Amino acid sequence: MSHTAEIIAVGTELLLGNIVNTNAQAISESLSTMGINVFWHTVVGDNPQRLREALEIARRRADILITTGGLGPTYDDLTKQTICAAFEKKLVLHPDILEDIRAFYEGALHVAMPENNTQQAELPEGCVVFDNPVGTAPGCAFASGGVHVLMLPGPPMEMETMLRRCAEPYLRGLSREVIVSHDIMTFGMGESSVDELLHEEMRHMENPTLATYAKPSEVRLRSTAKAETLEAAEAMLAPVVAQVRAALGDVVYGVDVAGLEEVCLRLLKERHLTLATAESCTGGRVAERLTALPGASSVYRGGVVSYWTQVKADVLGVPREILDQHGAVSEETARAMAEGARRITGADLAVSVTGVAGPDPDERGVPVGIVYIALATPDGTFCRKMDSGRRRRDRIQGLAANHAFDVIRRYLEGLPI
Amino acid sequence: MSHTAEIIAVGTELLLGNIVNTNAQAISESLSTMGINVFWHTVVGDNPQRLREALEIARRRADILITTGGLGPTYDDLTKQTICAAFEKKLVLHPDILEDIRAFYEGALHVAMPENNTQQAELPEGCVVFDNPVGTAPGCAFASGGVHVLMLPGPPMEMETMLRRCAEPYLRGLSREVIVSHDIMTFGMGESSVDELLHEEMRHMENPTLATYAKPSEVRLRSTAKAETLEAAEAMLAPVVAQVRAALGDVVYGVDVAGLEEVCLRLLKERHLTLATAESCTGGRVAERLTALPGASSVYRGGVVSYWTQVKADVLGVPREILDQHGAVSEETARAMAEGARRITGADLAVSVTGVAGPDPDERGVPVGIVYIALATPDGTFCRKMDSGRRRRDRIQGLAANHAFDVIRRYLEGLPI
Repeated sequence: MSHTAEIIAVGTELLLGNIVNTNAQAISESLSTMGINVFWHTVVGDNPQRLREALEIARRRADILITTGGLGPTYDDLTKQTICAAFEKKLVLHPDILEDIRAFYEGALHVAMPENNTQQAELPEGCVVFDNPVGTAPGCAFASGGVHVLMLPGPPMEMETMLRRCAEPYLRGLSREVIVSHDIMTFGMGESSVDELLHEEMRHMENPTLATYAKPSEVRLRSTAKAETLEAAEAMLAPVVAQVRAALGDVVYGVDVAGLEEVCLRLLKERHLTLATAESCTGGRVAERLTALPGASSVYRGGVVSYWTQVKADVLGVPREILDQHGAVSEETARAMAEGARRITGADLAVSVTGVAGPDPDERGVPVGIVYIALATPDGTFCRKMDSGRRRRDRIQGLAANHAFDVIRRYLEGLPI
Repeated sequence: MSHTAEIIAVGTELLLGNIVNTNAQAISESLSTMGINVFWHTVVGDNPQRLREALEIARRRADILITTGGLGPTYDDLTKQTICAAFEKKLVLHPDILEDIRAFYEGALHVAMPENNTQQAELPEGCVVFDNPVGTAPGCAFASGGVHVLMLPGPPMEMETMLRRCAEPYLRGLSREVIVSHDIMTFGMGESSVDELLHEEMRHMENPTLATYAKPSEVRLRSTAKAETLEAAEAMLAPVVAQVRAALGDVVYGVDVAGLEEVCLRLLKERHLTLATAESCTGGRVAERLTALPGASSVYRGGVVSYWTQVKADVLGVPREILDQHGAVSEETARAMAEGARRITGADLAVSVTGVAGPDPDERGVPVGIVYIALATPDGTFCRKMDSGRRRRDRIQGLAANHAFDVIRRYLEGLPI
């Protein structure tokens, strides 16, 4: 049987525009990979009448209701009470949950539990309890008259943890199908070019499906299969992934990875090589993205943000003649920056980025969007020129950082830069 | 008269979780600053029956309906047709809009206009047309039976442009009030401490209001006044801002600024001082946040990401004795890093960050969350120790970068570090 879900987010701060409803997106994505149709999102404030109205509308048009928010200890957290009134359920105190909450306050926060937290230990009679390992408010689920109601907390970290650990297993139990997806990540080709390279029939498959999603400068292809077992779904996906790889070639940089820097970190570890950076227009973005990954310290030695020309000369040792003759934004300077970073850090490889992020052209008239990326290696120094055209500063900086990682990736995989 | 609004976002990609509903947040924020209550957000897919149902529900409970999405040229863009059916309006072709769309294709894109774009020039009879300077689909507004209906496009950049230029003036015309807000930004004090320092009466004011919003490591206080004129609203806000500043003291780092780095950039420019960075556990975050701001190059010379100890010694010139005796994560190393960065870049000031972002303690057993921040200046070198406790890696890195900017800000304002 096919299910229809509605997601109801509760919180006045959403209606005031103070926060974005990322919870609805995360829950939707999760449900769609489980084959559950989400036909409605609703947002209501911390107002029991309007929440009751939303619940009455939702139960008529959906058979899975997922609420997020309003489970906290304060007077305006009314989700549980309102749902229990709508579905004629009693609230029952769970002494073990109360003990957990008390222990959380006394153990982690070193304060006595405020008395109004007692109501967080009250849950609808006969419900499945969803533990909250990262906060105090537990969630829960129950079924009533053919409608499943799931209550999740509002803070995104608590919501996501409970979604993965409790809500997804509960919802999978409602379905006989297994849904598996793989994300094929590409860099260096536009969405329409990717589309053209795929066989016509691949774009109209029903199971597995294949869809493209364009992020700034990257295209992600998601293939999703429904089957009775995990193994059967994987067996359906394997040829699709292989066909996409064959069709797109080396613009595919990985499957089920979060970004180019993750692939670079893995390749550097596998090859026991270390890396350094020399950044001008990206201002530390390449270093920041690498060091955001746990374990970066095993391969990343460090780098220089050579924002001023003088720092390029004094710290990286870029020869004054090169800077004078070719300018700070040039292939020659990019090469000398990478070689300088490699020399002063002792790293095996060093990547450099120098370009014009805007809003103005550089003092020699190099236009906004021109960036040079060089990679110094034991096999010599390679350089790539990027011309993004005039775009927003942050887009140019982000794209240039992606190019830097792509140059590293292609060198480590033995592909042409 | 007080208005009640509902925002209806149309698009299956929202229900699949492919994108986040940032449009609802942007429109809500805009409406709340105009004093219009938003009581509901709804999301429906590209499905005329369900959109019609959403409209029928919305017109019964709100008198301002704002839709976003579904104005494009393809077969699944059905917002205009469905709204016209619900409100019994005819669609009328606007030849001048058709000419604009045709000119956009031929002038900017150098291709002939596809014929299905003709329907984008059709709008409800008697509506106010909202121009779309960044895309092809115009929006519009009309009133029918006491309900105002506004249609905005889905792509966020087009939506935001049309919201500012067309929808806000239209909605202001419905209201006699002016709403003005100011954001008072603080760093270095938790939300509950901020609350306690405010006078009891300030927390329960009705006009102007004062509300606190906690971000990771920062607290923002927003004061909002409603009045008949801009001048009257500003006159009501000025004493509130002054009282909050007096109550909270120097944890207030600015009013209506986006972040600490923006204040640092302004102060450095005003004082004609230059800055350098030496980052270890923040891995380039301080440099990246500064260089994200246009104009950073006038004060930021550059820096070093000294991730490996060897780079601290070889590039920044941190003495080996200090590293051996005190370790890479220590006050002594932080001071030597800042002084080294100042020396090699020639900057007036240099800030350094060294600490343990996790997931593991450092090799000397310094626990996760300990970070030293030093600032080398012509007046000597200052140091702050941060202990965030065990948190997620990205939270520690972000908090440490904020401390670095706060140390710079306090030095430049002559406050104790």
